[in-house]
Amino acid sequence: MKPIKVGMLGLGTVGTGVVRIVEGHQEDLVRQIGTAVEISRILVNDVTKNRSISIPQERLTEKVEDILHDPDIDVIVEVMGGLEPTKGYVMEALAQGKHIVTANKDLLALYGTEIMAQAHEYKRDVMYEASVAGGIPIIRTLTEGFSSDRILKIMGIVNGTTNYILSAMSREGAAYADVLKEAQGLGYAEADPTSDVEGLDAARKMTILSRLGFHVNVELSDVSVKGISSVTREDIAYGKTLGYEVKLLGIAERTGDGVSVSVEPTMVRLNHPLASVSGVFNAVYVFGESVGETMFYGPGAGELPTATSIVADLVTVAKNLRLDVNGSQLPLRYQEKKLRSPEQIVSKYFLLLRVADRAGVLARITQIFADYKVSLESVFQHPNASTSHAEIIVITHNATKAGMQQVLEEFGKLDVVHEIRSVYRVEG
Amino acid sequence: MKPIKVGMLGLGTVGTGVVRIVEGHQEDLVRQIGTAVEISRILVNDVTKNRSISIPQERLTEKVEDILHDPDIDVIVEVMGGLEPTKGYVMEALAQGKHIVTANKDLLALYGTEIMAQAHEYKRDVMYEASVAGGIPIIRTLTEGFSSDRILKIMGIVNGTTNYILSAMSREGAAYADVLKEAQGLGYAEADPTSDVEGLDAARKMTILSRLGFHVNVELSDVSVKGISSVTREDIAYGKTLGYEVKLLGIAERTGDGVSVSVEPTMVRLNHPLASVSGVFNAVYVFGESVGETMFYGPGAGELPTATSIVADLVTVAKNLRLDVNGSQLPLRYQEKKLRSPEQIVSKYFLLLRVADRAGVLARITQIFADYKVSLESVFQHPNASTSHAEIIVITHNATKAGMQQVLEEFGKLDVVHEIRSVYRVEG
Repeated sequence: MKPIKVGMLGLGTVGTGVVRIVEGHQEDLVRQIGTAVEISRILVNDVTKNRSISIPQERLTEKVEDILHDPDIDVIVEVMGGLEPTKGYVMEALAQGKHIVTANKDLLALYGTEIMAQAHEYKRDVMYEASVAGGIPIIRTLTEGFSSDRILKIMGIVNGTTNYILSAMSREGAAYADVLKEAQGLGYAEADPTSDVEGLDAARKMTILSRLGFHVNVELSDVSVKGISSVTREDIAYGKTLGYEVKLLGIAERTGDGVSVSVEPTMVRLNHPLASVSGVFNAVYVFGESVGETMFYGPGAGELPTATSIVADLVTVAKNLRLDVNGSQLPLRYQEKKLRSPEQIVSKYFLLLRVADRAGVLARITQIFADYKVSLESVFQHPNASTSHAEIIVITHNATKAGMQQVLEEFGKLDVVHEIRSVYRVEG
Repeated sequence: MKPIKVGMLGLGTVGTGVVRIVEGHQEDLVRQIGTAVEISRILVNDVTKNRSISIPQERLTEKVEDILHDPDIDVIVEVMGGLEPTKGYVMEALAQGKHIVTANKDLLALYGTEIMAQAHEYKRDVMYEASVAGGIPIIRTLTEGFSSDRILKIMGIVNGTTNYILSAMSREGAAYADVLKEAQGLGYAEADPTSDVEGLDAARKMTILSRLGFHVNVELSDVSVKGISSVTREDIAYGKTLGYEVKLLGIAERTGDGVSVSVEPTMVRLNHPLASVSGVFNAVYVFGESVGETMFYGPGAGELPTATSIVADLVTVAKNLRLDVNGSQLPLRYQEKKLRSPEQIVSKYFLLLRVADRAGVLARITQIFADYKVSLESVFQHPNASTSHAEIIVITHNATKAGMQQVLEEFGKLDVVHEIRSVYRVEG
């Protein structure tokens, strides 16, 4: 039987891992697919460069056309990253009848709709297990394991950098800026950490997960995003006292036919499985109508976990090729997108207020909650001898996002409220 | 294209769930497989019985031959349970060229070798996602997601009853017998709870997982099993003070080419992801050479989670049928089985001793640890005013099982050691 031929765009660390796994596991691949898999051509910047693996030079090329226009190549593994020229290559590869395996979350989050439409037109596969939570087979789980369930909620710790920072702040009682510097020193955060710490990376991944989970064409711009740069050690300490860990959660929810997706620092109750996910680990919690609560935990990145996921995708594409069902698993028949309004988004909240330390203040504050029908689960007041402030911590019962926005607006007008220090969504 | 025809053995709650899912998701199944799936014949005890779903009576039969010898049937879904006559039906179905999907862990744990040999001879699939941790796609993950990794350790909370009991003891400070009674009242434990509380159910599941993870033909009799009936609330309270939760863990380990599998109550450090898995939930922790630490969490049983897993298996068999690669994923090329000896099994231990409350006792005890080269991580002594005992808690560094056995034997001979109250393996 004819072997499956693969062209690869890029040969960095992940690409090298893919070559190693494909060559080292031929027997296993044949056993699973029924035919061999061959990485026949690889796009590189410089064919003469020294590499950590020996690859016959005729298999390397600097011209992308050698791969995109080679009629023998069935599948393209895209591990060059970036948005351009990558997107153009992927669109052209699909038009040339090739299937795509990619780890490129930015490409999928931003141009997923276009790429999927192209894949649909040419009946090709686009697989991207490695794009979210590298070592966790979460895409496979959402599309196959839960294919006959209705998913209602996905919550993910999908960014290792921010989870490392929050875990270290929690463990050491350290300040955000100090831990960020330490994380940069260790290589867990980039010199410009914006994309991670402001929640953009997590938002891209949640876009991908919510499209798959809800069959709705969620765009990056639909995601409400807040990062962790304003999280204080004080918030974390108060949270701990009350039984919560602060985590940057991606939260995708569906009620009726409405969906909402957000990324925000969240107080997670200690008995929730997400609360104990620490360091650079990732975890995705899925609530399905039939299956109930499940969670998948593992490394979010790394060369070997990522390459392992790419090869697993390659096996699926090769099987589909032999089945002649390529393109059939594209999430194309999206339902109409209805985003939930702030009146429809419901959760508990944690608030930390600095207020004037005098009689009647608590009564005025609780009256405002009552005015907007936000009921309270618990209220703590800490007088602070050294200042004129008292600190009030409030945990609400379920309240709408709209209701909370009105409450916060009213607090802004009250002279006895000196500062709204923190507002967190509460989960678990 | 010809539809895939399914015969089902049994029509209890899980079987009914399977029928509902297959009928309700036809469009989705066609999209994934490329052809329709039809449950064409079902074995029941009484075709005239009233049922919660309407099924044309001609699709029901009381004669198993109508299914096993129907040449049009491609796949058998076995949801009748039990060992006999189920095993005979499964063996005959394979001989008749049919593929098997089953949720029957007892059958697989006890007769897995025979059944797989039969499947191999006739080149048929045997799928059993629902047999371990019902709603968690752990079998799929071990065989597909990690197909190109080398798994070194699997630790599982794979029995919901015992996890419910231990969680309740921990939360409420209650005694084993009281919580067991409560669990029986709630339907979480059976009237005769032996198979669950003595660890046998967990041992069957660990047999299945360790075969898959290590490609070694582990038999049930290779598993060292200890249940939870001797766990006291005192153990749990001491554990908590020191930062541990007591969990019934299945532990399968590989070092070099040796494997060991056990089920035993274990002190799990609170920061380990398994420590926070509570109630009837299941979780499987997998450590792979490439992927590192991962964990999969979800419901261990229940009609809908189980039926969902069975249908996912049915999709895989149907795809394999169309690919003509059936039987290719059987774990047949087992490596030679080498069980690790007690000298090769290494872990930390937690010990609780009752000793004479007088000078020199601690010195004699620590000397025995030293004699057998077991070094200690920490030692706590609690004098007890109301008795002549003192309580000593020891947590060791890594020690061999053989070394610990010798230490315990020596303690048995010492008159100053009044009682070896508890011995736990420590993980995390």
